[in-house]
Amino acid sequence: MKIGFVLFPQVTQLDFTGPLQVLHRLPGAETSIIAETPAPLPSDCGLDLVPTHTFETAPALDMICVPGGGGVAPALSNPALIDFIREQGSSADYVSSVCTGAFLLGRAGLLEGKKATTHWAYTRLLDKVGAIYTPGRVVRDGNRFTGGGVTAGIDFALTIAAEISGDLVARSIQLAIEYDPDPPFRSGHPDVAGPDHVARMKSAVYDRNAQMMSEALDA
Amino acid sequence: MKIGFVLFPQVTQLDFTGPLQVLHRLPGAETSIIAETPAPLPSDCGLDLVPTHTFETAPALDMICVPGGGGVAPALSNPALIDFIREQGSSADYVSSVCTGAFLLGRAGLLEGKKATTHWAYTRLLDKVGAIYTPGRVVRDGNRFTGGGVTAGIDFALTIAAEISGDLVARSIQLAIEYDPDPPFRSGHPDVAGPDHVARMKSAVYDRNAQMMSEALDA
Repeated sequence: MKIGFVLFPQVTQLDFTGPLQVLHRLPGAETSIIAETPAPLPSDCGLDLVPTHTFETAPALDMICVPGGGGVAPALSNPALIDFIREQGSSADYVSSVCTGAFLLGRAGLLEGKKATTHWAYTRLLDKVGAIYTPGRVVRDGNRFTGGGVTAGIDFALTIAAEISGDLVARSIQLAIEYDPDPPFRSGHPDVAGPDHVARMKSAVYDRNAQMMSEALDA
Repeated sequence: MKIGFVLFPQVTQLDFTGPLQVLHRLPGAETSIIAETPAPLPSDCGLDLVPTHTFETAPALDMICVPGGGGVAPALSNPALIDFIREQGSSADYVSSVCTGAFLLGRAGLLEGKKATTHWAYTRLLDKVGAIYTPGRVVRDGNRFTGGGVTAGIDFALTIAAEISGDLVARSIQLAIEYDPDPPFRSGHPDVAGPDHVARMKSAVYDRNAQMMSEALDA
């Protein structure tokens, strides 16, 4: 089971590191961390991430996973990246994204007519790549699995772990990573955070970010 | 606010990357990723992590955070690492760990007589470093904050974010990282996973690992 994560500069690192922590433990899994060049990639957090493979040296993947982040908008116009995702995604058994990585899958044509999700602030843009936004922390349509924003990648990866290796394996991984969440607040989704808080976040950050993503998708 | 994460080979990367994703967004925070040498460090997942500082070049920290993982047992006998944690921990405003990182804080003398927690499979060993095991996903004793296993680091970091920067900031970060968890199973802690499952995991993995940790703590 060859599982490849496709990275790019300014990836939101937890979109990737959460699922990696889960999927690396699947029996027989070999994980690859794939980027355009072998140089360490800057993430959004001051942490540089070291690829294990480039687009040229990556194995044929059974599962492709594309994380998101601030680097997605510029990455949408990187033909080498989009071609790699399209090529691997067309033959992989599982085609997946976390957060705004959905737009990279979409730009590669892999979400056309498919139910999908992404980070809450960008869901209305999914139709620009032909996807059908469907509420849910993890959305499945055939062999397409898309996760919501950032930390949704952990639920996403456990869902895929169960699909690939069965519930017992997924439950064991969940116990090993002590995933018994207890958030200190109820503010992790617009449905629970309250309209005032959501409005503040949109005006401070996400209106502008969604506009940039929209323009990058239209370009 | 200088926040430093102390890494070592075979760190469980999500112990570190979860809190980093949260704490990097604190207003005015500067995060450092600190290791003995500047070389990329192998994590437990095939992902190499690039330090930003060494023990020599690290700034004086306002907060120190020590993650855990399979590399903790050998790291317990690394005097350079333990000395660094002791020195920085004795002057930092916040002294913290995730998962089995608690044993490195403890070896440095920073949990003596303090309430603390760690990954569920190792809690009974906390008294070997003078700590008082206290159930909880995040345990606070004065300026000591310890988190449970792996994913507890996200709850831990949001708790500290609220302490340092207030509830509104923590709630905003929680919304930004869409932390509205929805695990596919209830198996993330021994209290909910069921005794048979816990017994299987102990006999497959954790009896041996806890024995190795115990021996390293006695050495």
